[in-house]
Amino acid sequence: MAEIKYEVTAKYGVLSTSKSGWTKEVRSISWNDKEAKFDIREWAPGDEKMGKGITLSTEEMRELKKILNGLDL
Amino acid sequence: MAEIKYEVTAKYGVLSTSKSGWTKEVRSISWNDKEAKFDIREWAPGDEKMGKGITLSTEEMRELKKILNGLDL
Repeated sequence: MAEIKYEVTAKYGVLSTSKSGWTKEVRSISWNDKEAKFDIREWAPGDEKMGKGITLSTEEMRELKKILNGLDL
Repeated sequence: MAEIKYEVTAKYGVLSTSKSGWTKEVRSISWNDKEAKFDIREWAPGDEKMGKGITLSTEEMRELKKILNGLDL
Protein backbone atom coordinates (compact mmCIF):
# COMPACT_ATOMS: atom_id res chain seq x y z
CA MET A 1 0.00 0.00 0.00
CA ALA A 2 1.29 3.46 -0.83
CA GLU A 3 2.50 5.44 2.10
CA ILE A 4 0.49 8.49 3.07
CA LYS A 5 2.69 11.35 4.07
CA TYR A 6 1.25 13.80 6.52
CA GLU A 7 2.35 16.52 8.89
CA VAL A 8 0.33 17.81 11.84
CA THR A 9 0.65 21.59 11.56
CA ALA A 10 -1.60 22.60 14.48
CA LYS A 11 -3.48 21.09 17.41
CA TYR A 12 -6.58 22.99 18.51
CA GLY A 13 -8.02 20.76 21.17
CA VAL A 14 -9.18 17.37 22.40
CA LEU A 15 -12.86 16.41 22.19
CA SER A 16 -12.59 13.25 24.29
CA THR A 17 -10.25 10.52 25.52
CA SER A 18 -11.24 6.84 25.40
CA LYS A 19 -10.44 4.25 28.06
CA SER A 20 -7.65 2.94 25.83
CA GLY A 21 -6.12 6.41 25.66
CA TRP A 22 -7.14 7.28 22.11
CA THR A 23 -8.09 10.92 21.73
CA LYS A 24 -10.55 12.53 19.33
CA GLU A 25 -8.92 15.78 18.29
CA VAL A 26 -9.24 18.86 16.12
CA ARG A 27 -6.00 19.49 14.22
CA SER A 28 -4.66 20.91 11.00
CA ILE A 29 -2.91 18.39 8.80
CA SER A 30 -0.95 18.71 5.59
CA TRP A 31 -1.46 15.55 3.49
CA ASN A 32 1.22 14.74 0.92
CA ASP A 33 2.82 18.19 1.22
CA LYS A 34 -0.39 19.93 0.19
CA GLU A 35 -1.96 22.89 1.96
CA ALA A 36 -3.06 21.96 5.47
CA LYS A 37 -6.73 21.19 6.10
CA PHE A 38 -8.70 21.02 9.32
CA ASP A 39 -9.18 17.50 10.61
CA ILE A 40 -11.28 15.78 13.28
CA ARG A 41 -9.86 12.35 13.99
CA GLU A 42 -8.95 9.74 16.60
CA TRP A 43 -5.30 9.32 17.58
CA ALA A 44 -3.55 6.59 19.53
CA PRO A 45 -1.44 7.60 22.54
CA GLY A 46 1.72 9.34 21.34
CA ASP A 47 0.17 9.73 17.87
CA GLU A 48 1.45 6.24 17.02
CA LYS A 49 -1.62 5.47 14.90
CA MET A 50 -4.38 7.51 13.34
CA GLY A 51 -7.97 6.35 13.32
CA LYS A 52 -11.00 7.29 11.33
CA GLY A 53 -11.83 10.91 10.81
CA ILE A 54 -12.73 13.63 8.38
CA THR A 55 -10.98 16.59 6.85
CA LEU A 56 -12.69 19.95 6.62
CA SER A 57 -11.93 23.08 4.61
CA THR A 58 -11.97 26.50 6.27
CA GLU A 59 -15.35 27.18 4.64
CA GLU A 60 -16.74 23.88 5.99
CA MET A 61 -15.42 24.79 9.46
CA ARG A 62 -17.23 28.14 9.22
CA GLU A 63 -20.50 26.38 8.34
CA LEU A 64 -19.96 23.86 11.13
CA LYS A 65 -19.44 26.72 13.60
CA LYS A 66 -22.72 28.32 12.50
CA ILE A 67 -24.59 25.02 12.88
CA LEU A 68 -23.10 24.33 16.33
CA ASN A 69 -23.94 27.81 17.54
CA GLY A 70 -27.54 27.22 16.49
CA LEU A 71 -27.81 24.00 18.52
CA ASP A 72 -28.82 23.82 22.17
CA LEU A 73 -26.06 21.45 23.33
CA MET B 1 -20.65 -8.43 5.67
CA ALA B 2 -23.19 -7.76 8.38
CA GLU B 3 -25.73 -5.13 7.57
CA ILE B 4 -25.54 -1.90 9.51
CA LYS B 5 -28.95 -0.62 10.45
CA TYR B 6 -29.27 3.11 10.85
CA GLU B 7 -31.89 5.80 11.01
CA VAL B 8 -31.32 9.50 10.40
CA THR B 9 -33.19 11.20 13.24
CA ALA B 10 -32.26 14.83 12.50
CA LYS B 11 -30.55 16.95 9.83
CA TYR B 12 -28.88 20.13 11.10
CA GLY B 13 -27.21 21.46 8.02
CA VAL B 14 -24.96 21.02 5.00
CA LEU B 15 -21.28 21.97 5.21
CA SER B 16 -20.55 21.65 1.49
CA THR B 17 -21.66 20.04 -1.77
CA SER B 18 -19.16 18.41 -4.14
CA LYS B 19 -19.27 18.57 -7.94
CA SER B 20 -20.70 15.05 -7.97
CA GLY B 21 -23.52 16.12 -5.66
CA TRP B 22 -22.27 14.48 -2.48
CA THR B 23 -22.96 16.59 0.59
CA LYS B 24 -21.01 16.80 3.84
CA GLU B 25 -23.65 17.10 6.55
CA VAL B 26 -24.27 17.33 10.26
CA ARG B 27 -26.98 14.90 11.33
CA SER B 28 -28.13 12.76 14.21
CA ILE B 29 -28.11 9.05 13.49
CA SER B 30 -29.31 6.07 15.46
CA TRP B 31 -27.03 3.09 14.69
CA ASN B 32 -28.50 -0.39 15.24
CA ASP B 33 -31.48 0.99 17.19
CA LYS B 34 -29.23 2.58 19.81
CA GLU B 35 -29.52 6.14 21.08
CA ALA B 36 -28.85 8.65 18.30
CA LYS B 37 -25.42 10.30 18.08
CA PHE B 38 -24.29 13.38 16.22
CA ASP B 39 -22.60 12.61 12.93
CA ILE B 40 -20.54 14.52 10.36
CA ARG B 41 -20.45 12.56 7.12
CA GLU B 42 -20.64 12.64 3.32
CA TRP B 43 -23.85 11.53 1.63
CA ALA B 44 -24.59 10.69 -2.01
CA PRO B 45 -27.50 12.47 -3.70
CA GLY B 46 -30.78 11.15 -2.30
CA ASP B 47 -28.88 9.56 0.61
CA GLU B 48 -28.30 6.50 -1.60
CA LYS B 49 -24.85 5.90 -0.11
CA MET B 50 -23.00 7.09 2.95
CA GLY B 51 -19.34 8.03 2.86
CA LYS B 52 -16.69 8.43 5.46
CA GLY B 53 -17.43 10.38 8.60
CA ILE B 54 -17.34 10.47 12.35
CA THR B 55 -19.86 10.20 15.14
CA LEU B 56 -19.77 12.60 18.06
CA SER B 57 -21.40 12.51 21.48
CA THR B 58 -23.19 15.57 22.86
CA GLU B 59 -20.20 16.24 25.11
CA GLU B 60 -17.83 16.04 22.12
CA MET B 61 -20.09 18.46 20.21
CA ARG B 62 -19.90 20.88 23.15
CA GLU B 63 -16.10 20.72 23.12
CA LEU B 64 -16.04 21.13 19.35
CA LYS B 65 -18.25 24.22 19.65
CA LYS B 66 -15.84 25.73 22.21
CA ILE B 67 -12.85 25.03 19.96
CA LEU B 68 -14.55 26.48 16.87
CA ASN B 69 -15.58 29.62 18.74
CA GLY B 70 -11.96 30.10 19.75
CA LEU B 71 -10.73 29.94 16.14
CA ASP B 72 -10.51 32.91 13.79
CA LEU B 73 -12.12 31.26 10.76
